[in-house]
Amino acid sequence: MSKYWSNIVKKISPYVPGEQPKDRKYIKLNTNENPYQPSQKALKAISKVANESLRLYPDPTCDSLRNTLAEYHGLKASEVFVGNGSDEILAFSFMAFFNPGDTIIFPDITYSFYEVYSSMFCVNYRLIPLDEEFNIPVEEFFTENDGIILANPNAPTGKALPIESIRRILEKNTNKVVIIDEAYVDFGAQTSIELIKEFDNLLVIGTLSKSRALAGLRVGFALGNEQLIEGLDRVKNSINSYTLDRLALVGAEEAIKDHEYFCEIRDKIINTREWVSDKLSALGFKVIESKANFIFISHPKINGKLLFEKLKESNILVRHFNSPRIDNFLRVSIGCDEEMDFFCQKVREIIESLC
Amino acid sequence: MSKYWSNIVKKISPYVPGEQPKDRKYIKLNTNENPYQPSQKALKAISKVANESLRLYPDPTCDSLRNTLAEYHGLKASEVFVGNGSDEILAFSFMAFFNPGDTIIFPDITYSFYEVYSSMFCVNYRLIPLDEEFNIPVEEFFTENDGIILANPNAPTGKALPIESIRRILEKNTNKVVIIDEAYVDFGAQTSIELIKEFDNLLVIGTLSKSRALAGLRVGFALGNEQLIEGLDRVKNSINSYTLDRLALVGAEEAIKDHEYFCEIRDKIINTREWVSDKLSALGFKVIESKANFIFISHPKINGKLLFEKLKESNILVRHFNSPRIDNFLRVSIGCDEEMDFFCQKVREIIESLC
Repeated sequence: MSKYWSNIVKKISPYVPGEQPKDRKYIKLNTNENPYQPSQKALKAISKVANESLRLYPDPTCDSLRNTLAEYHGLKASEVFVGNGSDEILAFSFMAFFNPGDTIIFPDITYSFYEVYSSMFCVNYRLIPLDEEFNIPVEEFFTENDGIILANPNAPTGKALPIESIRRILEKNTNKVVIIDEAYVDFGAQTSIELIKEFDNLLVIGTLSKSRALAGLRVGFALGNEQLIEGLDRVKNSINSYTLDRLALVGAEEAIKDHEYFCEIRDKIINTREWVSDKLSALGFKVIESKANFIFISHPKINGKLLFEKLKESNILVRHFNSPRIDNFLRVSIGCDEEMDFFCQKVREIIESLC
Repeated sequence: MSKYWSNIVKKISPYVPGEQPKDRKYIKLNTNENPYQPSQKALKAISKVANESLRLYPDPTCDSLRNTLAEYHGLKASEVFVGNGSDEILAFSFMAFFNPGDTIIFPDITYSFYEVYSSMFCVNYRLIPLDEEFNIPVEEFFTENDGIILANPNAPTGKALPIESIRRILEKNTNKVVIIDEAYVDFGAQTSIELIKEFDNLLVIGTLSKSRALAGLRVGFALGNEQLIEGLDRVKNSINSYTLDRLALVGAEEAIKDHEYFCEIRDKIINTREWVSDKLSALGFKVIESKANFIFISHPKINGKLLFEKLKESNILVRHFNSPRIDNFLRVSIGCDEEMDFFCQKVREIIESLC
């Protein structure tokens, strides 16, 4: 610890992303990346601007990408914000909509970055315990003066709330911003975007990292009432005028426009998720019903950490969280069919050798 | 203003970048972009990774780029931080090294983002007036318990401090971090990097946007004692695990390695700056001695704002700041020779028509 650090830096425990090991080749099922390549149209558009134009700053207002996202989602461009991945937008949202000392509530089992943002920006947080089956107790989120952040589908469980539950939460909460983090929504959950017209305190956050197969490009977006979007713009323009580079701007735009390819790879992942879930259930696993591009599993006879380690020895990386209530579970990203076949086969071998 | 905005968002006045007009084609001398194309090696490297790999997250620790920068500057990788442009790093530095209520000092005429960061992160600031010739009064920066941020060369004046002045400031200030923003240092000023070994509170910040002709790629870096770098890492990892995309990481690395091309375009810009300065002096302009890729000029007989407007009518964009003490000056980025010939010719015509 340095005497030059600010108090907040001394205090925070930063987020730890999934391993990106360089020692050998793994089947990477640990960071919810898409197993399929990005849209060829997006890749071509990127190559096309890898030229002289990079000497110039990108468009600070990102108008073209905003227009594309607005059209895609049936909104106005002024109802769209874009940023360097949805994490950056989540961080900006904490700065834009909550004061130090405010309270924000979220489930005890959810994306662990929410706790980090709360600490970083001195916002108190209250954890609402999920039930035994990892369901979100909707009524517990009826709170007048606290902010709310919910991942839908939730992570790492993969469980989704229906839009009617989100509506009920919004009806009870009109004094603070309600953030719905839809990073995984495209894999089978219902989006809350249509509620934006009704509720001026709803912010829906999305990303191109998962369903658009562009984790390496860093593009996220937020949708909401134009005053909320203006708040995010004010934060961005007080930190970094240009958070999206020229390559990301064009790549993201083409990826959004390539709807056909998006549907194709999304459907493949959903299909794979379903047969893998069935296969693992048959092997005795508890498989939480997932609407995401990952599954959350535990086996009655094998310790989660041990299974994680055995899989790593077999060159398969999955995610294990050393956290209360879920330390016997593994989060497994859905890869392509060949990868998941290999995964299921290895899991079967490990079970047979240990049980 | 929205009732959902945080107090800070209600209060701040965000930074306004130079115009990026889309209405017609201008000679853009208003945002200090490099007139030459980026390194061909960097462009090739970017095209090469515009492929399947974009489905994967980038390396969150940016090891390869950090190593390259460390080697280039004779430091350890642990003494290097990289980020999404130097603005992001400046914002992170405010969060990492200053508490709300602390004071930071900087000149009254300097990069206007410093004031924005101060407001955004509730750090008090004290302005030290430059002298009549826009020199920085070094002794005024001898202050025990305040942070310091200095652009060297300064912007928008272009004037540089010698390293011995920075050393004197560091000798007097050991309790808080001293940030030297070297965005423009490559165009003829002395870098303070060699002082990092001596002073553990010195943070030197650089960018690839200017001398490397990569404003569109968004890459900046900070160099300093490894505890300062760890502080920046902790802030980054509490906001966004991956601020640099895969394309930016490889492009930046190749640009740094292409030293020969860097020297070539840097020298061209310096040469152009010198003859343009001479030509403008001959036309009666006061030209502040610049060590940057821009010049700061005023004419005794023409109002700065009027000259700005007349140039815009001639399809030349320069920067005019509507600020006390400098509202009669224009900041003119150094373009290629043809652009600057055209600029000088237009300026002469405007002077002749108005005086």
